[in-house]
This record gives sequence, C-alpha cells and structure tokens, in this order.
Amino acid sequence: MGRITARRKITRLTVGESRITREDFLAVEEPLEMRVNGRSLAVTMRTPGNDFDLAAGFLVSEGIITRGAHFSAARYCAGATVDGENTYNVMDVTLAAGVAAPDPSLERSFITTSSCGLCGKASIDAVRTKSIYDLTADELRLDAALLTTFPHELRAGQDVFHKTGGLHAAALFDGATGELLVLREDVGRHNAVDKVIGWAVKEDRLPLRGTVLMVSSRASFELAQKALMAGIPVLAAVSAPSSLAAEFATEVGLTLVGFLRGDSMVIYAGEERITE
Amino acid sequence: MGRITARRKITRLTVGESRITREDFLAVEEPLEMRVNGRSLAVTMRTPGNDFDLAAGFLVSEGIITRGAHFSAARYCAGATVDGENTYNVMDVTLAAGVAAPDPSLERSFITTSSCGLCGKASIDAVRTKSIYDLTADELRLDAALLTTFPHELRAGQDVFHKTGGLHAAALFDGATGELLVLREDVGRHNAVDKVIGWAVKEDRLPLRGTVLMVSSRASFELAQKALMAGIPVLAAVSAPSSLAAEFATEVGLTLVGFLRGDSMVIYAGEERITE
Repeated sequence: MGRITARRKITRLTVGESRITREDFLAVEEPLEMRVNGRSLAVTMRTPGNDFDLAAGFLVSEGIITRGAHFSAARYCAGATVDGENTYNVMDVTLAAGVAAPDPSLERSFITTSSCGLCGKASIDAVRTKSIYDLTADELRLDAALLTTFPHELRAGQDVFHKTGGLHAAALFDGATGELLVLREDVGRHNAVDKVIGWAVKEDRLPLRGTVLMVSSRASFELAQKALMAGIPVLAAVSAPSSLAAEFATEVGLTLVGFLRGDSMVIYAGEERITE
Repeated sequence: MGRITARRKITRLTVGESRITREDFLAVEEPLEMRVNGRSLAVTMRTPGNDFDLAAGFLVSEGIITRGAHFSAARYCAGATVDGENTYNVMDVTLAAGVAAPDPSLERSFITTSSCGLCGKASIDAVRTKSIYDLTADELRLDAALLTTFPHELRAGQDVFHKTGGLHAAALFDGATGELLVLREDVGRHNAVDKVIGWAVKEDRLPLRGTVLMVSSRASFELAQKALMAGIPVLAAVSAPSSLAAEFATEVGLTLVGFLRGDSMVIYAGEERITE
C-alpha cells in the first residue's frame, strides 16, 4: 500500500543562526491512474490512501455512478509494471452490469461543444444537465453558530496536515446535529472532496441531503460541481470562492459560504438556509 | 476582454450580530480552451488576463516551445460561438514553421507507458527526458536574507488578491539583485506559473538562469516540473512541498525551498545554492 507521508532530510535555515539539519515528514504525492472496465479514464496526482473512495467519488462527479452497487469491483492492477510489481498506483474499477462506462473522448469534448462556445454559462449548463439531484428540494436549515464550529473540527481532524503542514482537507458534516461524518486529506483539494463523496456513495448515502461539505481551501467551480453531483446542499470554505462557483451555486440552489473563520462568514448563495 | 474580478452581492454574517448585505469583488474563473494550429489541446479553468502568456507558458511546460519565435501567432477565436460572439475563452496558437505541434493522444498516454508502470519515479523520468535544460550547470548563489524578502514583495504585488482574498500568485525574481521581474495571479497556481513562464518565453529569456520562482502556495510536482522546463534553478514556496516535488528537485538539480516565512525557510533540495 502506498505511503501517506515520507521521511526526508531537510535543512532549517533562519537568517543569522546556524543551519539545522534533521528528518521531517512530507505529504506523499504519487500518480493514480483510474481505469474503468480496463480502459484508462484519468490520471490524477494524489496522496495515497482511500484510493477506492477517490475512484468512486470521481465517478460520482463524472455522473457515472450514484449507488454503491454500481461498483462491482475495484482492485489495484498487479500486472501494471514490466516486472509485475504492484505500484498501488493503477486502479481498475469494474462497473456493475447495466452501468454505462464513460466515454473518455466524449467527456473531453463535452464542454467545448456547448451552445455558447466556451464560457462559464456553458460550463454551468453542462453540469446541470448531468446531475440527477435537485438541491432546491433540500429543506435543510443550518444554524450559523453550529456552522462556525466546523473549521475547528476540520483542522483538528487533519492528522497528515499536522505532520507535514501541507495538505488540503474536506469533510462532511450532518447539518442538523453537526456530527462529523467523514474527513479526508489529499495534496489535491478535488481529490479530498472525491474521497469524501466516494466514501458516501459506497455507503449508499447519495443524495447527501441535509449535509455540509467543508473544505480547507478556496471554493472553485469544480468543487461546487462535485457538491451538486453528490446532492450536498451546502458548500463551506475557509477561503474565497470564485465568481463561477458563486454563479453556479445560485443557479442550482447550492448554499455557498466562504471565509468561514472565527464567528463569521460570507454567504454567496442560498442565504435562506442559514438561520440563527 | 474577460474580466479579472466580478462584483457580487454578498451577505456578511457574524454570529449574534445583524447581517450586512453589500457588494463585494470575487476573482473571476472562466474556462480557457487552448488550441494549437486549430486543434484543441487542453481546457483549463483560469482567471482571464494574460491569456497569451498562459498559453505560451503551457506550451513551454509541455516541451513544445522554448523561444518567442516559436509562436507565429495567437488570437482569440471570434467564431467560437454559435452566434459568432467572441467569448475570449478560446485561443488559437499558430506555431512557427518547423515547430512540431503536440500530439494530444501521445501526451496523454506518455506517463502510463513508462518503465515502472505508474509511479513517481516514472513521472520524474518522463519530465527529465523532455527538458533541454540542465539546472546543475546554473551557478546561481542566492543570499538567504535576500530570499526572505521575496514573500513580502509577492504579497505586495497581488492586486487581485487584495481585492478578492482568493487568488494564487507566482513571481519571478532575479536571484542576484532581488529584482521582481514579473508577477501573475490566477485561481489556479499552475496557471499563475504558466503566465510567468509564458511572459519569459515571449521575451526570449529561456532558460531563466539565475532566477527564483516564488509561489504563494504549496510546491507540487507539477510546479517543480514547470521550473525545470523553463530552466529556473530555484523554486520557493510559502507553504510545504510534496514528497515527489522534493525527490524531483534532488534528481534534476533544482533548489527547493518551502515554508519561506519571516526570516526562516526549510530547504528540501539543492541547499548548496543558498548562501549567507
């Protein structure tokens, strides 16, 4: 199994003081190739660990699966190397009978054939068409004071971050009770979110009604898109959202919160869900 | 021309106080489709602005161009939309005669056909093969005290960040004098770096001997790879590098500095270049 952290000799230099050389921990980054039914779909640079969840979440984001049973098997390809060694970096997912495998060429050209050439509006429309969930139907009302406790819980659960100082995290909370359902870390924030959603689809929890997806980073369009594909009604970020994430959130009924720090926050969309 | 920031009505909520609704600025995120000689190469979500530099830098990173003259033309495709409107989100680059265009299918499968299946070592080898520059030949010696002034200069130059609180930045400094050569911002840190390198290739400054690439984020494998492809001998980051970035830096003679904050730093590779 791949390692999550790696030891490395580093030198700490403070101007005017003597250099200190010691061992330190770094977050591991390794490529993962995801294959579906034997066909290569994507390569992502990720932190090893929870790779099955990563692949499952990726397939939810792509609109391929919505239930645990849609996965019939997932395994590391032992024969991926010349000498037959298993790198644990190539994963083959077998979809259940009747679940359509993605067409990489179609996926790739999808965005560019949209009606207005290539623009944010086309990106929003493309994603909206793919999703089977309607976030506007989610009746969650989220207490603002409860929401302000999530960043602390997120940070407290970031084991690898504490060791390395260099990882993104994503976590799913129950919006009514504030219970932390799952937390995942990765060098890529989109991977951390995929790992969270992949855990949920394997547990057959989609759509994730009444939940909050909390991320340690900014909120990009891609993360907002992933929230919709999993049926998550609230996306909360420690930092700023992009313009397109905010537009998208308004269009699809996603509550988008940024700069969630201390006892305050900025609400960019879906304000009616945040109560006091 | 695309907008860099967008106004949006937001609500600021502080627990126990009344909500404040006002206009605020968000960093714009829009897709950019890059075409080479009329053929689609990649789509990236980016902040509009310096798109020519972004495309040029991307082509340097991919090993396609190394000089300004390798670009014969670059323009936004006015006919990209159904109604003929220009979204300024589709850019067609025409390469000079004799410059080989990338083969998207080859590029895509390159990493997976490497000798050890799919692992960090294969990724490092693949990039090393592509680069025409030898960083070990760069005789830059960089004063540690000078280096500690770069994060402040980077932050001071981040105009869009100051307005929106949500953008990555990359800047190029002269390692001998400390002069800031160019600074670029983007929602994606890889885009910010491509914009910096694209500026340099258009100015015919490659290889960027004696320079320092400073980033506001973590240092991933991808960023270290871009430094090598542009012949930059030092990569400095405000936050942590990944294990693969550090391994790669050691392999190719790149000096890698992380946690560059206040008057201290952590050196992960190429320590001999940092003097006092």
